[in-house]
Amino acid sequence: MSNSPLFLPRGFRFAGTTCGIKASGKPDVSLIVSDRPIVAAGVYTTNQIVAAPVVLSRSRTPSAAIRAVLTNSGNANACTGEQGMADAKATCAQLAELVGCNENDVLVMSTGVIGKPLPMDKIRVGVEQAHGKLANDDTAFIEAAEAIRTTDADRKTESCELTLGGQTIRIAAMAKGAGMIAPNMATMLSVMCTDASLTEQDAQQMLARVANVSFNRVSVDGHTSTNDTLLLLASGSDDPLSGDALAQFEASLTELAIKLAKQLVADGEGATHVMQIHVVGASSDTSAEIIAKTVAASPLVKTAISGGDPNWGRIVSAAGYAGQPIEPSQVALSVCGQSIYDKGTPLSFDAASLSGTMKAHPQIDIELRVGSGAGEATYWSSDLTTDYVRFNSEYTT
Amino acid sequence: MSNSPLFLPRGFRFAGTTCGIKASGKPDVSLIVSDRPIVAAGVYTTNQIVAAPVVLSRSRTPSAAIRAVLTNSGNANACTGEQGMADAKATCAQLAELVGCNENDVLVMSTGVIGKPLPMDKIRVGVEQAHGKLANDDTAFIEAAEAIRTTDADRKTESCELTLGGQTIRIAAMAKGAGMIAPNMATMLSVMCTDASLTEQDAQQMLARVANVSFNRVSVDGHTSTNDTLLLLASGSDDPLSGDALAQFEASLTELAIKLAKQLVADGEGATHVMQIHVVGASSDTSAEIIAKTVAASPLVKTAISGGDPNWGRIVSAAGYAGQPIEPSQVALSVCGQSIYDKGTPLSFDAASLSGTMKAHPQIDIELRVGSGAGEATYWSSDLTTDYVRFNSEYTT
Repeated sequence: MSNSPLFLPRGFRFAGTTCGIKASGKPDVSLIVSDRPIVAAGVYTTNQIVAAPVVLSRSRTPSAAIRAVLTNSGNANACTGEQGMADAKATCAQLAELVGCNENDVLVMSTGVIGKPLPMDKIRVGVEQAHGKLANDDTAFIEAAEAIRTTDADRKTESCELTLGGQTIRIAAMAKGAGMIAPNMATMLSVMCTDASLTEQDAQQMLARVANVSFNRVSVDGHTSTNDTLLLLASGSDDPLSGDALAQFEASLTELAIKLAKQLVADGEGATHVMQIHVVGASSDTSAEIIAKTVAASPLVKTAISGGDPNWGRIVSAAGYAGQPIEPSQVALSVCGQSIYDKGTPLSFDAASLSGTMKAHPQIDIELRVGSGAGEATYWSSDLTTDYVRFNSEYTT
Repeated sequence: MSNSPLFLPRGFRFAGTTCGIKASGKPDVSLIVSDRPIVAAGVYTTNQIVAAPVVLSRSRTPSAAIRAVLTNSGNANACTGEQGMADAKATCAQLAELVGCNENDVLVMSTGVIGKPLPMDKIRVGVEQAHGKLANDDTAFIEAAEAIRTTDADRKTESCELTLGGQTIRIAAMAKGAGMIAPNMATMLSVMCTDASLTEQDAQQMLARVANVSFNRVSVDGHTSTNDTLLLLASGSDDPLSGDALAQFEASLTELAIKLAKQLVADGEGATHVMQIHVVGASSDTSAEIIAKTVAASPLVKTAISGGDPNWGRIVSAAGYAGQPIEPSQVALSVCGQSIYDKGTPLSFDAASLSGTMKAHPQIDIELRVGSGAGEATYWSSDLTTDYVRFNSEYTT
């Protein structure tokens, strides 16, 4: 949960409410409504088993005419067949009527249990309630962010303000759940709202690039959900940003997305550390990303980090089996700033002292050189603890 | 540990001894010696960080002139630079002198801690001791199999006898450690000895095929070691097997390799169940293998299995993110023979009863149809338990 002040963009209203989808009685319906048709872009799960809301939203983005985003938590509307699609469409139609727009101009996201039909009677009440509460203030934004949570320990929001060519632009974003970290198939959902002016095409291309260096660079357990969705809504009505201003905006959006992505990892089930893995010297950036991801996903690396063990052997050998070219005699590694392996050979170091440092720091920086190439990439992952296993095995379908 | 009777092939002598490489005082030097030059084939780790013994043995196979295999446990001789290569060569030279052969006709395997030089004084004594004990009997074979263990809970041996064209042929094989399952980087090592007559080329091609459907189809934590080695030694001096007899021999060798591979998984650290994942309906066998491996590696599937949870959502969605073509409307799944998902939709079933069945069975059979193609593959994996995490995080370099 970020304690930074909120910078809410103009042109949006937000709401969150509780309609009883969740047995816990926690908020479960979230709305974002725009005052007028705006630009929206989307990036979705690459899983081939996709939930109805993903199919629907994917077919509706990019767009220059979106009016609203409806999210429910507690039920993912996944593996629900034709009924699921009909239900997703019906909830969009209901909100469209309340907002006064075409149902195709509403986007929808769902997260929660899969294989169970949406409780339509409850959701109908929830959408109506939430619509009645819409407001452009911090409380409304926070309530909207609360209502997309499933097993997240905290709500996840980030916002910023930047000045581009004398114009003040704001971005406020919310997110929930990193990967399929939870018994009920937690999903990564995020909506980034801005009052910048963007073309439909710029928004879509930018969002794909932003996702690739933020949400696509984090992993809790490597399990891609059926419902993952990242949306960008841009409400500006001036001339669209271009040139340097567009690039500066993208840099800010990227920074915000990385902050949110790291929040997701830090809140991974059972996680006690975030690993930041920076690979350099690879044959290309893509190669560096694959190596970083392989190190990040290794259960032996993840358990070493949770145990405060500067285990160079596990890290170096994970790089070695990533299927990417490396130069063994050039491999070098530092952990928390301490060099422990160089030119393909372990260095002598004070393991007890470094272990103490690792245990004391919530973020473990791993710097790994794999050769003399120019490729580099950063990846974030949580460590693997007995709590992760306990949460995910002490649950019965 | 198999309780089947041993069928020892002719032409080999075996020995295991203790020379103090391991602090535990357990056996750590193992020898297999042939009476005359024989055919040997090898399949090695695909990790780009490879230990000196792998580099050496890889350069010496396939061969028709191998006389001996020397294995030490307790020290992997990995990440040990030029000294490591010199030490590996020196141990081969010592054994070659005792056996009376060229040092290039000795193969070598090591497993244990990495980054530490081999304790050459101890190994020299061990090789001499073991050479003095060589014998062709069950006790000697079992002692040789004991001496390649690291953290394996049991020794792993399998053997069989078959009649090909009126000739009796025997195969006896030993193995240790599944993947990098242990704090000290356990390695998969296996030697399969037979008195069949094989050409060098047939032996090498057959061993690669056998590895692909056995040792390459099992996973504990997906971490590929720097030292993995599989050897086939064939001592027969008659006309080499060909045609049907060769095919029948390969079938028996494959069966034995799969039995050993499953022993490795069952002995994975903390493992309480073996998952057998059979994927059908894929676009090709390779595609089926990738899907099966993705399901096998998912921490959410592995924790569900350890918890006795018939969680179709985790299994089906893992198939969906494997990056292989699937037909969602054709997806069907059964667990322990109980159909729980069909035609892309969950079925209603007695979850408590199926969970009870899962908890009671050491092997969980997962049958997954992903489409209407002809591709199929089987993969074996261990489940993920809190014990795995505890073993691998409560260790300090």
